[in-house]
Amino acid sequence: MARNITPREKDYSQWYLDVIRAGELADYAPVRGCMVIRPNGYSLWEVIQRHFDEAFKDTGHVNAYFPLLIPSSFLEKEADHVEGFAPECAVVTHAGGEELEEPLVVRPTSETVIGHMYSKWVQSWRDLPILINQWCNVMRWEKRPRLFLRTSEFLWQEGHTAHAAKEEAVEETLRMLEVYREVMETRLALPVVTGEKSEAERFPGADNTYTCEAMMTDMKALQAGTSHFLGQNFAKAFDITFQNKDGEREYAWTTSWGVSTRLIGAIIMTHSDKDGLVIPPEVAPVKAVIMPISDDEKALSETFEPEAMELRDRLNALLGKRSVKVDTQYHMRPGDRFFYHLQRGVPLRIELGKKEYESQSVRLVRRDTGEKTDVSWDRAPETVRQLLESIQKNLYTRALEFRKANTHHVKSYEEFKNVLETRGGFITAHFAGTREDEKEIKSETTATIRCYPMNGQSRGTCFYTGKDDAPLAVFAKAY
Amino acid sequence: MARNITPREKDYSQWYLDVIRAGELADYAPVRGCMVIRPNGYSLWEVIQRHFDEAFKDTGHVNAYFPLLIPSSFLEKEADHVEGFAPECAVVTHAGGEELEEPLVVRPTSETVIGHMYSKWVQSWRDLPILINQWCNVMRWEKRPRLFLRTSEFLWQEGHTAHAAKEEAVEETLRMLEVYREVMETRLALPVVTGEKSEAERFPGADNTYTCEAMMTDMKALQAGTSHFLGQNFAKAFDITFQNKDGEREYAWTTSWGVSTRLIGAIIMTHSDKDGLVIPPEVAPVKAVIMPISDDEKALSETFEPEAMELRDRLNALLGKRSVKVDTQYHMRPGDRFFYHLQRGVPLRIELGKKEYESQSVRLVRRDTGEKTDVSWDRAPETVRQLLESIQKNLYTRALEFRKANTHHVKSYEEFKNVLETRGGFITAHFAGTREDEKEIKSETTATIRCYPMNGQSRGTCFYTGKDDAPLAVFAKAY
Repeated sequence: MARNITPREKDYSQWYLDVIRAGELADYAPVRGCMVIRPNGYSLWEVIQRHFDEAFKDTGHVNAYFPLLIPSSFLEKEADHVEGFAPECAVVTHAGGEELEEPLVVRPTSETVIGHMYSKWVQSWRDLPILINQWCNVMRWEKRPRLFLRTSEFLWQEGHTAHAAKEEAVEETLRMLEVYREVMETRLALPVVTGEKSEAERFPGADNTYTCEAMMTDMKALQAGTSHFLGQNFAKAFDITFQNKDGEREYAWTTSWGVSTRLIGAIIMTHSDKDGLVIPPEVAPVKAVIMPISDDEKALSETFEPEAMELRDRLNALLGKRSVKVDTQYHMRPGDRFFYHLQRGVPLRIELGKKEYESQSVRLVRRDTGEKTDVSWDRAPETVRQLLESIQKNLYTRALEFRKANTHHVKSYEEFKNVLETRGGFITAHFAGTREDEKEIKSETTATIRCYPMNGQSRGTCFYTGKDDAPLAVFAKAY
Repeated sequence: MARNITPREKDYSQWYLDVIRAGELADYAPVRGCMVIRPNGYSLWEVIQRHFDEAFKDTGHVNAYFPLLIPSSFLEKEADHVEGFAPECAVVTHAGGEELEEPLVVRPTSETVIGHMYSKWVQSWRDLPILINQWCNVMRWEKRPRLFLRTSEFLWQEGHTAHAAKEEAVEETLRMLEVYREVMETRLALPVVTGEKSEAERFPGADNTYTCEAMMTDMKALQAGTSHFLGQNFAKAFDITFQNKDGEREYAWTTSWGVSTRLIGAIIMTHSDKDGLVIPPEVAPVKAVIMPISDDEKALSETFEPEAMELRDRLNALLGKRSVKVDTQYHMRPGDRFFYHLQRGVPLRIELGKKEYESQSVRLVRRDTGEKTDVSWDRAPETVRQLLESIQKNLYTRALEFRKANTHHVKSYEEFKNVLETRGGFITAHFAGTREDEKEIKSETTATIRCYPMNGQSRGTCFYTGKDDAPLAVFAKAY
């Protein structure tokens, strides 16, 4: 156990912050609730971005950029939207040395200003669909900030699409939910339950909200991404209309969907351990680090290091530019050098010491299991590739099994409260209660409906109201 | 000449705006002075970003993210800095429903908040250098906005480095100037004059500012990127100190450097023509578009289009994913389809009509010259590659020759005014005047010193003061 990391079972929140600090992922900024994403955290975000961006482009989306500042009157055009977001807004009242005529809010999300622009761009059915995504910063003032999970400013992507037909917009909403699930599971190694949110948990202004819910190692749920079917609500508020094939004017149907730097929090709380950060190879900025180790400075510079550089180049040719680094922090003791990269979550350590050098081999040490493999220089690249695949698979499987082991089905409210108290985790239960029932359950237990799962065809008796033919819901305490 | 584009010689500003509108690059936003970067503009920015980002990483830099909002007191810590930027700031006074104790400015640039963080991160000489870059939005309130060139919000990168020794920081400043020049010339096909700014034109808070100056087709200069040696000014203001190898505390030496979405304006005003946008192939999001053309709908869908898709796949394998598109806007007339892509600046059009289909060939049409080449399907990929290279080279050479033809050397102030009035362009002249002399020249002629060129070893008699041994300066009217 690392001395600079609080044991998880002692204080989960402190463990989380210790992992971030030891991995140099982020810092609190001088402005309350805001964060600085340090290079180790940002490079992780860059890889996450790349995977999602590629998936968005593969499904026909293009990127654009809309303004940071939104006239406050825009927010007020959609009643639910302003109610949901106005209390969290940061407001610009002065600019260029003068007081503004109308205050401007720093975007908490961009449905309104994008709706305004779409109304100008869309005239005919031929202008639809519009499939635009934006990568940007947004601001939602936080009273209880937490690095990556809840900060006043965060980075995200927000997709905003407009369609001629309702079915197309619904299809898009579900397509992007599926894109999210796919990238989260295959790249971030985050198993997620996808499903529909209850009315109470919907995005302000949406007709339906779909979500990806992941289980953290403290068994709490984390909402990892959401996809919203906005119906014609924003089209009506911002007059996004088009002339259909019959020459009639119609309102468009819109969607929006987003994932954020919160995903870094999800990776930390899913994969990391008592020693600190663990990053799945598919999103690791540095997949492996090669360590020349010797007391003999001459041997280091003349034989070990050149050999390490040569291996690095061969590995990078296989795994991608800058995937593998050579550690040359020779002023540190080997153990400290190991620890340095271990706490930064590097999936694989490659040791090249005297013994290895003499046998023309390297020692590979897995971050996830600590398992060691000796392999010849010739076979090293292929073995490294295989081990990285194996680590990726192991992290996903471990997380999935953890979720399965900590998901329980209940049939009564007594059982619900008992399981939540004694075992925690996800609780599946048939539920046909009202919004008020849900509120009641939340206030008594702090658990909320995370979603009605997509594949939940199962119907049964409501655990709370006793009503028949209730759909299946997943409940949990959540971040 | 395109009917939707005002002739350049009639009204250059309107021509510029027409090119942007016809290419769907950007729109004004509902907030005064702000812009929306539309997908065609943003995808161009993405390619520009990729080239610079790669060059930054190749020179050892990493990306990070610092907060959008900066306490207003931070700006005041560096006297020149606050004087330069405070009048342009947008100010957040309220957040989360309450008035803030201290107003926060939306970052106009991030030296201050980054200086604050570096002072926490740097303890010992071993923590240096810090080589960090940030891609983000910044805000400088503009009274006379102009799309891409001067908007209240724009996107940019800002590099911020800290070093233990002055020489290292100077070296970094010049290294990044050279990185800028290289990317601008080889990728954006923008020939630039690199050099040092005069004292009057320095970044507020810098000891020296270096710049890349490009000549637009109206012969005005555009500052395309700057690199600043900040001395110890920000280190002193924010207490960035380190323990040196002798155990003594010293102030660090810092640099900053930036390029912005203004570069899109530079591309437009360097390469575009009477028909609209021209994009150099190296930064073109779409390098070529294939056009199946036929009146026969069955032939289109069953033979022409599949052949076009097949060629697209072969071209993309050679040029990169999504580099080549197939145009299927069959509801439009061929001429309108040509025009559509021409106004979006696509470097190469590939026509596949009946005649071409029968001879198993395609017709390649260059955007820069209109020149046509017929080539067999087999040889098409290699010919496309060669033509793209040739277009890239031609655009650069054309721009360089234009600059050379419009750069004049003068020896007296009379000659200076005469050349500026009758011929315009860049004026080189030996100059040893004071800051006041420079101001005088500007107020009389509107021309400013763009830079003292880097390779300007030439010394001579000052054209303005008659002093001996004056360095060479480049003067021009500028954006």
